[in-house]
Amino acid sequence: MNAYQPRTEDSAFLLLQVLDASQQLQELPPFAEVDAGLMQQVLEEAGKFVGDVVAPLNRSGDETGCRFEAGRVTTPAGFRPAYQAFWQAGWPALACAPEDGGQGLPAVLQAVLYEMLSAANHGWTMAPGLLHGAYECLRHHGSDALKQRYLPRIASGEWLATMCLTEAQAGSDLGLVRTRAVAQADGSFRLSGTKIFISGGEHDLSDNIVHLVLARLPDAPAGPKGLSLFLAPKFLPEGRRNPIFCERIEEKMGLHGSPTCVMRFDDATGWLVGEPHRGLNAMFVMMNAARLHVGLQGIGLLEAAWQKAQAYAQERRQMRAPGASSTSLIAEHPAIRRILDTQRAWIDGGRVLAYRTAIELDLARHHPDADRREHAQRWCSLVTPVLKAAFTQQAFGGASECLQVFGGHGYVREWGIEQIVRDARVTMIYEGTNEIQAIDLLVRKVLADGGAGLSALLQELALGLDGQQASQAGVLRRFDALRTQTAALVQASPARADLPYWVADDFLRALALALLGWAWTQIECRSAGQARPARWSGPARALALWVLPEFDMRLGIIQTQLTGNERSARA
Amino acid sequence: MNAYQPRTEDSAFLLLQVLDASQQLQELPPFAEVDAGLMQQVLEEAGKFVGDVVAPLNRSGDETGCRFEAGRVTTPAGFRPAYQAFWQAGWPALACAPEDGGQGLPAVLQAVLYEMLSAANHGWTMAPGLLHGAYECLRHHGSDALKQRYLPRIASGEWLATMCLTEAQAGSDLGLVRTRAVAQADGSFRLSGTKIFISGGEHDLSDNIVHLVLARLPDAPAGPKGLSLFLAPKFLPEGRRNPIFCERIEEKMGLHGSPTCVMRFDDATGWLVGEPHRGLNAMFVMMNAARLHVGLQGIGLLEAAWQKAQAYAQERRQMRAPGASSTSLIAEHPAIRRILDTQRAWIDGGRVLAYRTAIELDLARHHPDADRREHAQRWCSLVTPVLKAAFTQQAFGGASECLQVFGGHGYVREWGIEQIVRDARVTMIYEGTNEIQAIDLLVRKVLADGGAGLSALLQELALGLDGQQASQAGVLRRFDALRTQTAALVQASPARADLPYWVADDFLRALALALLGWAWTQIECRSAGQARPARWSGPARALALWVLPEFDMRLGIIQTQLTGNERSARA
Repeated sequence: MNAYQPRTEDSAFLLLQVLDASQQLQELPPFAEVDAGLMQQVLEEAGKFVGDVVAPLNRSGDETGCRFEAGRVTTPAGFRPAYQAFWQAGWPALACAPEDGGQGLPAVLQAVLYEMLSAANHGWTMAPGLLHGAYECLRHHGSDALKQRYLPRIASGEWLATMCLTEAQAGSDLGLVRTRAVAQADGSFRLSGTKIFISGGEHDLSDNIVHLVLARLPDAPAGPKGLSLFLAPKFLPEGRRNPIFCERIEEKMGLHGSPTCVMRFDDATGWLVGEPHRGLNAMFVMMNAARLHVGLQGIGLLEAAWQKAQAYAQERRQMRAPGASSTSLIAEHPAIRRILDTQRAWIDGGRVLAYRTAIELDLARHHPDADRREHAQRWCSLVTPVLKAAFTQQAFGGASECLQVFGGHGYVREWGIEQIVRDARVTMIYEGTNEIQAIDLLVRKVLADGGAGLSALLQELALGLDGQQASQAGVLRRFDALRTQTAALVQASPARADLPYWVADDFLRALALALLGWAWTQIECRSAGQARPARWSGPARALALWVLPEFDMRLGIIQTQLTGNERSARA
Repeated sequence: MNAYQPRTEDSAFLLLQVLDASQQLQELPPFAEVDAGLMQQVLEEAGKFVGDVVAPLNRSGDETGCRFEAGRVTTPAGFRPAYQAFWQAGWPALACAPEDGGQGLPAVLQAVLYEMLSAANHGWTMAPGLLHGAYECLRHHGSDALKQRYLPRIASGEWLATMCLTEAQAGSDLGLVRTRAVAQADGSFRLSGTKIFISGGEHDLSDNIVHLVLARLPDAPAGPKGLSLFLAPKFLPEGRRNPIFCERIEEKMGLHGSPTCVMRFDDATGWLVGEPHRGLNAMFVMMNAARLHVGLQGIGLLEAAWQKAQAYAQERRQMRAPGASSTSLIAEHPAIRRILDTQRAWIDGGRVLAYRTAIELDLARHHPDADRREHAQRWCSLVTPVLKAAFTQQAFGGASECLQVFGGHGYVREWGIEQIVRDARVTMIYEGTNEIQAIDLLVRKVLADGGAGLSALLQELALGLDGQQASQAGVLRRFDALRTQTAALVQASPARADLPYWVADDFLRALALALLGWAWTQIECRSAGQARPARWSGPARALALWVLPEFDMRLGIIQTQLTGNERSARA
């Protein structure tokens, strides 16, 4: 079965024509020269690298997996040369600042690059995928000395980075972290403790590994507000090996190309990043970008699954489709058509939302006007958890539907579709489980300001929609319903502290569907004159028929709990 | 992590108290002596065997898998001794007729046994799981000579059996089968062709393997009506090896304990079972039982997943639940509670439906009254595809939700929950994909008689429900809505041949939810006086809040296509 191939024309259309990315970005001083032509060219080059170098390693990476022996981790054959080619070609530095050796391009191009990389080879992509968080974190919170020593090599990707957060007893609840940090006379710290689930904690892809480690100072208060962040490299500046040891790698359901390490810090040397006890704060700078990237992984994996299923459905013949006079391609059978078009509805709409979020990240960083920056920040803060949760769920569920297209062959490894299902499953868990995204959205983002931010965002998206067109009227109706229900939740929650936690998942789903509907109105506006109208009209129909009906169901579920009338639920 | 343990008290309660199984079965002449005490005793013994012998081999079976070398298949360590103990203890023969050496117990006990076996070790259970279809098929359609030679050893399980249907070009579409059968002077046939996806095609569990093979006689018409069924053993009666070769076994997503074989028939000797060209007909005798068993696999796997997640949630502490003053068990967090109770709603309700179906199979075979037999047949014909599709989908999706309870640990193999997700995935495909079940239900069962059979079934279930009780009123409302929509589909379909194919999946889901709601009214009636009311009230609440709302969504989706007013779907 052929490997995934990036289709940059689709992404370019959504980015440049549906979202007007180049016009918006050219208003930002650092991107004044970034026109549509340049963006398209970058995407095509990226697609070529991804398709030629990274995608062919996906299947063998899953089959071989990473090997652990005596503290060393060997990645699958071809992974190191591909990574060396990747950083030497400048890809990790795409959106880094020129003063750090970066190319200074918009983050949205990096977003599309990582969507393609995840589609091509999720396991391999885990390693560079962690660079950008480390870069942002160090750039904003590192001391000058640390920055001078580490920032350029993280920006370039010459050295890879990790995030050492989780411990056996501290998963979603980082307040329970126990790793200790003790100050030394020379201004450094000694770190001791054991971290688990460390992606790329040890490997052979790069010559050094820079760990960012959450730990607790001796005088730290208990809980999450007693955590500090430290940088601790595998090799110290003088070349000595820092006592940071990989104890084992996990055997996992998938993602075999990425080593998930148990890391022991044995009085390892590190340096403080940011202020003492403000470690979580230092990490928040990268939270939205990191979660957006997981959402993009979901979209990429779903695209990879769709490509495989689509190719198979266009080649395999079984039974007659309704009305056909001889054995049909399975793509002509309604059940298969529905699966394929439904995934496209999620992928294309998801791209609009994810690319728009990446553009807003660029605006939040670089727009000259503070109001517009805050505005962009609001978008990111509200939409990012939705993207992370809804599109990773769809990646897993939708890839499983694509597997179904293959019948029994889907269950057999050689076709590669079951790998996507296994790989995709982890995206629902890491970077904050999807349940935690839902609580983050409803409790910390929506209810915290009495629903004002969400209401303003929806109002803004509603501008320019025309109530006469059915699909746009549908969006307006859903936005209104969401606003009404948000107001009811704002009112009811103070007296019922657990209510938001019971309905958070449904609220996130409802918002995801409302935004997806909006995204498709934007696609429909711009695709009307396109050469292949069926390319967009099939998925638009699938969206209306099979995806959006869930919205009312979700609102109904919330309503039942809001009214507290569970008796009505039964009838 | 502990292996699955059968909880026979739950199954016994549902079977004996909710479904009154013993009263119903004792009306049948062969089961006059089968009282509740005997049934309970059989379940307890079965649970003990499953828990002690079969469950402990599940993890190692997944890790080791089956090995293929030079045409031979070696099953994981312990599999053969466990199988030998299983058949020697008489378990395969539980529900076989006494004249074939069986114990003559009701099929419903076998159903519960196989639910437990699948929960304990899906891979191992595949081998004996195929015996019963072969037994029924041979019993009803085999010649006396064939029966004499093979039936007792299939009944006892001394020899295992396969079903050789699929070929590379013939999956869901068996009409495309090409394997040839040529008559010999001695009344035997020579079979040539290659079959794929043959579960247990070759292995070391039993001393002989009896293959049932679909093939085409030289004068056969094209399509499914030109297929004949043959019996071809691995070792011929005189001890000679029949030229039936395993060419390779598939590398699969899961189910590693079961070898999925490519089998080559190289002028192999076989004998006709049933009439020429009526091979599919000879197989239909076992279709409902086989599909019911796949539905039970789904229920079993979901129970196994729930047990793991429940145990973890009762042990792991992270963050404070709403209103709690210190770190809580994760079972106290609403998102986790919802996942756990929702699975129980499916499992317990599913058991009521599946056990009832197994009882109806017993009634269809043994009831003295022809009307009652036909009546039972109607239940099986309508409910079986629903069970197969809905409960295998829930097994996969629900096991994935149970995995989510573990956070990152769920993705790690050692906890065993990800194996359940991988193993469960195949149940949505084999024995007719879930999409084919939906078409079977709507096109071949419901619309074929103008909706009369379904309407009568729902009417009968509605008797005894009380419109004053909220949950019962809900069931009545759903039944009415289904009947109305069925009538509309009956009316619309002649002019729109493709319509049923577009809505079949939704129709099956809607019926599944309506039946699940009914099943829970039965549980609620009988559990009111139980010692642990929360055991049943939590899942009942989950059903009402989170499961049943999908019913109206499904009906809405069908309605949109019925009216052909897709514009309305967008608004």
